[in-house]
Amino acid sequence: MNQPHFITFEGIDGSGKSTQARMAAEHLRARGRKVILTREPGGSAGAEEIRQLLLTGDTDRWSAETEILLFTAARRDHLEKTIQPALADGQIVICDRFADSTRVYQGSTRGDLRAMVDRLHSLMIGREPDLTFIIDMDPATALARGLARKSGEDRFEDFGLGFQETLRHGFLALAHAQTDRCVLIDGNRTQDQIASEIAAHL
Amino acid sequence: MNQPHFITFEGIDGSGKSTQARMAAEHLRARGRKVILTREPGGSAGAEEIRQLLLTGDTDRWSAETEILLFTAARRDHLEKTIQPALADGQIVICDRFADSTRVYQGSTRGDLRAMVDRLHSLMIGREPDLTFIIDMDPATALARGLARKSGEDRFEDFGLGFQETLRHGFLALAHAQTDRCVLIDGNRTQDQIASEIAAHL
Ligand SMILES: Nc1ncnc2c1ncn2[C@@H]1O[C@H](COP(=O)(O)OP(=O)(O)OP(=O)(O)O)[C@@H](O)[C@H]1O
Ligand SMILES: Nc1ncnc2c1ncn2[C@@H]1O[C@H](COP(=O)(O)OP(=O)(O)OP(=O)(O)O)[C@@H](O)[C@H]1O
Ligand SMILES: [Mg+2]
Ligand SMILES: [Mg+2]
Repeated sequence: MNQPHFITFEGIDGSGKSTQARMAAEHLRARGRKVILTREPGGSAGAEEIRQLLLTGDTDRWSAETEILLFTAARRDHLEKTIQPALADGQIVICDRFADSTRVYQGSTRGDLRAMVDRLHSLMIGREPDLTFIIDMDPATALARGLARKSGEDRFEDFGLGFQETLRHGFLALAHAQTDRCVLIDGNRTQDQIASEIAAHL
Repeated sequence: MNQPHFITFEGIDGSGKSTQARMAAEHLRARGRKVILTREPGGSAGAEEIRQLLLTGDTDRWSAETEILLFTAARRDHLEKTIQPALADGQIVICDRFADSTRVYQGSTRGDLRAMVDRLHSLMIGREPDLTFIIDMDPATALARGLARKSGEDRFEDFGLGFQETLRHGFLALAHAQTDRCVLIDGNRTQDQIASEIAAHL
């Protein structure tokens, strides 16, 4: 496989995305590649401000439709200001969450809005990653990990375990539907075991 | 004409929209109608937070495409939380700016994005006003009025006079294209003269 340049990590809350994204960046840097590690929502000055609106406050602060628009606004800013310039410069971009999170969180969990998410994505974003790691694991264990961190950005974790279970099925469906770019990773292992499997794909 | 229930005011910066929206609300209330007066961007708690991101800061803070998404997110929240509940309750909604501002500001002034604005509107908003007053006036006079207020929310005024002239032509084109709901108002007159003409339409 050619070196993929735009790589994303996806999965339910607390599944180990940020940990594995960081380990993948270290792995590629140790091999002399120029890598930027970024995340969503956020990853550019404007998108980080939108992030605050999305991840703090009550679960009913925004409807799913308004959320889709805010995530897409943040993604557009992130793409223009951070991702596209880095790719144009020949760097590898590793991104912790991207459009698949919107497809699953807003598209399949809070009502049947997947068609709306997909149309908005083609209209305003267009770009897909070259390679996506979907980390799958037991939602109860993942949720306990996430809550233990008390980040203050826990609006989605506050939707509860049933929500995380629906999310898990959404990510599994996506991994099976988009096999050209998605690799399903078993997250119920140690960090190093998971990182070795991911490194083998890079 | 039947009483229109969803009424909007549009026009370039400083053209007198807020003044005339307030006078129209007073006129209808004096006739015993229940009226809510609201504005965009804003008009609901969430949309007012998005307003801060849009109206403050540098002119190059957001691309036109990201702006379209943020305005549409604010509009969706405003529609769900404020406009639709009031209309369902039988009230008259007077709104200071609505989707026409996005059509003109982002659709025709910052590049040829009108098709994008229209597709996003049909996908995420759908609703049009029953009646729209487009206040037309000399941009230099309007800009001087607006700047004199020093509101701190002057990001669009900072784009300058040429920008306001392009905006004016955009609003005139819209008034000629959508004659079913748009009424063009000459804003180069006293507040009372303009208010009387508007009252005659209500
Ligand atoms: N394989 C693992 N085994 C045990 N603990 C892990 C493993 N991977 C990550 N963790 C720990 O679990 C917690 C969540 O991991 P991480 O922040 O990487 O998840 P995440 O998917 O990015 O979460 P979020 O969705 O909340 O951003 C962290 O405290 C991390 O140290
Ligand atoms: N017909 C008029 N003649 C003279 N001054 C006016 C007239 N209408 C409004 N003004 C004054 O011009 C200024 C701008 O008016 P207003 O705030 O109503 O405009 P606006 O279109 O809402 O502006 P913005 O686009 O900045 O919100 C205010 O100070 C207002 O008092
Ligand atoms: Mg994380
Ligand atoms: Mg005003």
